[in-house]
Formats: sequence, structure tokens, C-alpha cells
Amino acid sequence: MIVLHHGSLREYAQRLLEAAGVPAKKAWLIADSLVAANLRGVDSHGVQLLPHYIRQIEGGGMDPAADGRIATRSGGCAVYDAQRGIGQSVAAVCCDLAVDLAREHGIGAVTVREGNHFGACAYWAERMAGAGMVGIVMCNATPLVAPWQGKEKRLGTNPICMAVPGPRTWLLDMATTTVALNKIHKAALCGQESIPAGWAMDAEGNPTTDTQTALAGLPMPLGGYKGSGLAVMVEILCAVLSGGGMLTDQGGLRRLDLPMRIGQFYLALDVERFMPLEEFTARMQWVRDTLKNTAAAVGYDEVLVAGDPEWRAEDERRESGIPIEPEVWASLQETARKLGVEPPPETAG
Amino acid sequence: MIVLHHGSLREYAQRLLEAAGVPAKKAWLIADSLVAANLRGVDSHGVQLLPHYIRQIEGGGMDPAADGRIATRSGGCAVYDAQRGIGQSVAAVCCDLAVDLAREHGIGAVTVREGNHFGACAYWAERMAGAGMVGIVMCNATPLVAPWQGKEKRLGTNPICMAVPGPRTWLLDMATTTVALNKIHKAALCGQESIPAGWAMDAEGNPTTDTQTALAGLPMPLGGYKGSGLAVMVEILCAVLSGGGMLTDQGGLRRLDLPMRIGQFYLALDVERFMPLEEFTARMQWVRDTLKNTAAAVGYDEVLVAGDPEWRAEDERRESGIPIEPEVWASLQETARKLGVEPPPETAG
Repeated sequence: MIVLHHGSLREYAQRLLEAAGVPAKKAWLIADSLVAANLRGVDSHGVQLLPHYIRQIEGGGMDPAADGRIATRSGGCAVYDAQRGIGQSVAAVCCDLAVDLAREHGIGAVTVREGNHFGACAYWAERMAGAGMVGIVMCNATPLVAPWQGKEKRLGTNPICMAVPGPRTWLLDMATTTVALNKIHKAALCGQESIPAGWAMDAEGNPTTDTQTALAGLPMPLGGYKGSGLAVMVEILCAVLSGGGMLTDQGGLRRLDLPMRIGQFYLALDVERFMPLEEFTARMQWVRDTLKNTAAAVGYDEVLVAGDPEWRAEDERRESGIPIEPEVWASLQETARKLGVEPPPETAG
Repeated sequence: MIVLHHGSLREYAQRLLEAAGVPAKKAWLIADSLVAANLRGVDSHGVQLLPHYIRQIEGGGMDPAADGRIATRSGGCAVYDAQRGIGQSVAAVCCDLAVDLAREHGIGAVTVREGNHFGACAYWAERMAGAGMVGIVMCNATPLVAPWQGKEKRLGTNPICMAVPGPRTWLLDMATTTVALNKIHKAALCGQESIPAGWAMDAEGNPTTDTQTALAGLPMPLGGYKGSGLAVMVEILCAVLSGGGMLTDQGGLRRLDLPMRIGQFYLALDVERFMPLEEFTARMQWVRDTLKNTAAAVGYDEVLVAGDPEWRAEDERRESGIPIEPEVWASLQETARKLGVEPPPETAG
């Protein structure tokens, strides 16, 4: 396993992107958002995505020159046409727009059409939280999930994310499937023959615990019909309301034949319109403490609050570096070779 | 089983409430919201709640004379202090306030403190949808659920609800536990010795499928840690942000020793700020059709979209009447006897 300091990894990612024609400022934003996911232990949304991003750029699915534009703006609401621009640079503009709308109206909503992959939602919700907002971020995605009681792919893993201002108390970023797809891929990679019940079903819609059958089948919506309901809620706010691609209109990061047409939704709530920020953060701390002080169930040592596992990973990886799977490292090296970019020394960690 | 026409049942509920000292207009709103839940087949939120409401009124937990007041209003945001008023009359005021804020700012958020039980969320989200809004409603509730990995009660069943304008396409109203508590109660009432895996755990936090053990234990958050995350999201929007009771501060409809101190959150998004209403409803219809046209998984006849089961129940019960469980009917009769109210003839259905 290669281990790199996050600074070295970010710098490497930035050079790869610049070599692929991405302007420096946008390249930094992509690199920082992906490495932030790696730091938080969310490797599915880390630098392993870079070769896919670069293929999208080369294929025209992501346009590094496009900035997108505000299609409509009215009161605290805006629709943003991303024009296939880089997902991260559009996300930064739309977070800041939602924050501006919330500064003016107390609450701001921005819905985005014709967008691209923007990394993990948490990075953007935290950007809004950093401006004193409760920040909510959702996005739709490549159809890979059947609606409950169905067996054909219609919905994405459609995540829901919320961050709050102040010190680390709670941060939610979750797909609306039982587990992220990448957990099933990982089980297969690690040679695990079975996965827990409730993760997936076969191609006919029968629940399965066989890893290979699950890979050829469908991930399960979170808790059945409720997960499907939440995924459609996300679809409505991101896609119906933005005027963009809906459900089966979506392409994917791993497809070059269709534009991605991702929809996103940003909601910023200005905490100061409700109470002083210090009061809010004190109340959040009480909520955190009251949850953490719950006696642990059999088989556990403690209650973990949303955000805890990622913050622990971040503290550790900032110190000791980011481990990179050999397959991911090989695919980065191949991309670097093609682009004529010098990789960092493997002992950089 | 007693079967009553919904009009007779509503009229009976209204007379009971008026006899308990609730002014006519508020009594109508409670009666209409509870009977609407019965019509939709959601009997857990129907007239079975009436004797509990009336005990809360008699005990001082619900104050029929209090209307609540806007505590703060700023831009598209407001905080409402419900002052222990009737949950339904406060909800009507707050829905209409969220709609007014959204008419002015495109989007409106109202968070409520010191509230009471308001029936099912769907009734209120639909009220906002009827004004051309995407309506989102959440509320916190009596702590009955342990946070994931814990075994002590800290969170409510904290539901999430969203309704959209236009004809029946989709309507979400879900607790953030795997199933509503009342499904476990019902299994016990029907003498079922076991319940499906994933519904509940015993008092030590071990997953259980034994009905009696589950009753003495804890309901399971939806899909584990994600359900806990969603429940805390609801808690933040309803309770942290409203300045009201949080987590273990809550009383309950079945407790007379503590005020309920429920928090609620209403969000209205004015669809016309994003696109013409007809375009939105046409897009919603396409989403519905695309989901409904999904081939059914093994063991199912069709894909059901959120709202479908309730709309079917409503069509049937409007026609053939509302069936009332003998235990519920007996408790209504007892309440009527105490208040000196004449019940409707049992053949009214």
C-alpha cells in the first residue's frame, strides 16, 4: 500500500488535472475536494475518481472552460445551468450563491441542472456551514437502483447531506441505499463470498447475500420503500425543480456515450435569523453530548454520531498520511504516464 | 368492527372535542386532520388519538385557548412559539405563514417550539402543496428510539414528509425508524409471536424478532446508522433551531407528568420561482410514470410509489366507510360517556 501525505497527493492531483487542460483554480478545487474525502476515509469519493474525471474531460462530458450561469434568480431561489462545467467549480459557485441568498433572505435554495460529479456532498455542505449556515446538499446520480418492488434501474444512490456551523458536533452525508455501492465492490475485491442481508438483490429482485450475484444485481434502497421515497425526494429537488435530466436521463462517470446531466440542490439556512450563533452551537453540543452519553448496545463500545468515523479518520490520516490501494495507485500512474506528469516519490508519506 | 362514514366520524370527533372545551373552529381542524388519516388508512394517526388529546386538554398539556405567537420573523424565516396550543391549529397557522414567506421570498421556513401533537405530517405538507408549494414538514417526538449502537431512548420517531402541488403523483410521509411503533403493537394485539428482523431490539440492544421482547425493547432506526442520522437532522431543524425542547426534554401524548414540548419544521418552496406550475406537474407525472413502468421484482405485482397505498385506501374508505377497531371504538364511547356526548348510531356506515 502506497501512503502519501495529503499535501503531496493534492499537489499530484492538481498537476494531473492541469496537464489535462483544467485551469489552475478549478484544478485546485477538484484536487482539494477529492483529497478531503480521502482524508475523511471516504476513499470511494477520493482520488480514485481522477482517471474517470480526466476521461470525461477528454471525451467532452466535462468542459473545463464552462463556468455555467444563473438561469433564473428570484427572491431566495435560483436555478443554475452548469453547462457541463467542472462539478466542483460549479458547486463552489452554487454554495456561495445559496449563502448570498440566505444572507439576503434568511434562507436560500439553488437547484442545478446539466451538472457533473462534484465529489462528496460533505465538502459543500461544510462550505456553507463555514459561512454560519445550516447547509443541506443533495444530488441525483446515474440510475443504478430499482424503486422498491421493482427490478429495473431507475434511481441513483441520491445522497442527503447536512452540516452545521461550529466545532465538530454532527455531519450527515449518506446515500439513500442501504450501503454505498463501493462496499459491495470492496467485498468482491477482498474475496468475500457473502455480504450481509439487506444490501442487495439479484437481477430478478430476489434479496441476495452472494457477493457476485449482488454485483450483477441491484443495490437495495435504505430500509425498502422508505429509501425509495427519500431517493425520489432528492430527485424532485435536484432534477424536477431544476428543469434538468431526471431518472433515466442521467449518464454516469464511467460512461462516455451520454452526458452526465446531474442535478444538485443546495439549501442554506442562516442560523442568526433564528438565534445567536453561540446559542446554536451550545445547543448542538448538548445534543451531541446527550447522544454520546447513551449506554452502548450489546456488541458496541460507544455511540457514534454522524461524522465521528470520518473525523477520526481525518485526524489519523492528517498525521500519518493517506493509504492508497495498489489498483488506484496503478491507475493514477497510468494516467500520469499518458499526460507526461511526474508522479511524487512513493516514499512521500 | 364498527364502520362509519367519514362525515359521521368527523362530526362525532368534533362534538367530543367541543364538549372538552375546544372552540368550534379548532375542533373542526383536529377532527378533519385525524379523520383524514383514517381515510388514508393511517389509523395510528386517526381518531384513536382523540381520548389522548382530551386527556391532555383536561390535564393542561394542551391549551385550547392558546394560539401561540410569532417569536421572531426575519426574511423568509420565522420561529413560532406554540405556547402549548392545539397542535393542529398552530400547524395551520405555521403552514400558512411558511406559504406567505415563500410568496414573498420564494422560500419560507418556520420552526416551532413548545408545540403539541398535530396528527399526521401529510395533512400539513398537502396544505402547503395546495398553495402551489413544494411542502416539507418534519417534527420531533417523545424519545422512544436509541441512537444507533446505543440502548437508551433519546430520539423520537422523527418523521420526514414532502408533498408536491398538482394531481396525485407522489407524497412521502415516513418515520425514521424501520417501521412505525404501532406495527409492533398491532403484531402483539393480533397474537403474532414474531416480527420481521430489523424492526426492533431488546432492552440490551440485541436485535430481536420476538414480539413481546420488542415491545419491552426499542424500535430500530431505519437501516441502522442512517436512520439515526436522519432523526438527528429532523431534531436539529425542529428543536435546536426553534429554541425549544430537545431529545429527552420531550414529554409524550400518553404522559401527563411532562409538557410535550414538540418541535416542528415547515418549509415551503414556491414552484413558480423555478418554472411554471404546469411544467412542474408534467415533469412530476413523467417521474411517476417512469417509476410505475419499472418491471416488478419477484413476489410483487407492481411498483408502488410513495402515496399510492394511502390514496387507494382513501378512495375505498370514502366509498365504503372507515372501519374502527373494537378497542378504539370502546375508548371513544367511554370518552363520550364521560363528556355526556351522544355517539353516532353504529349503523352510520
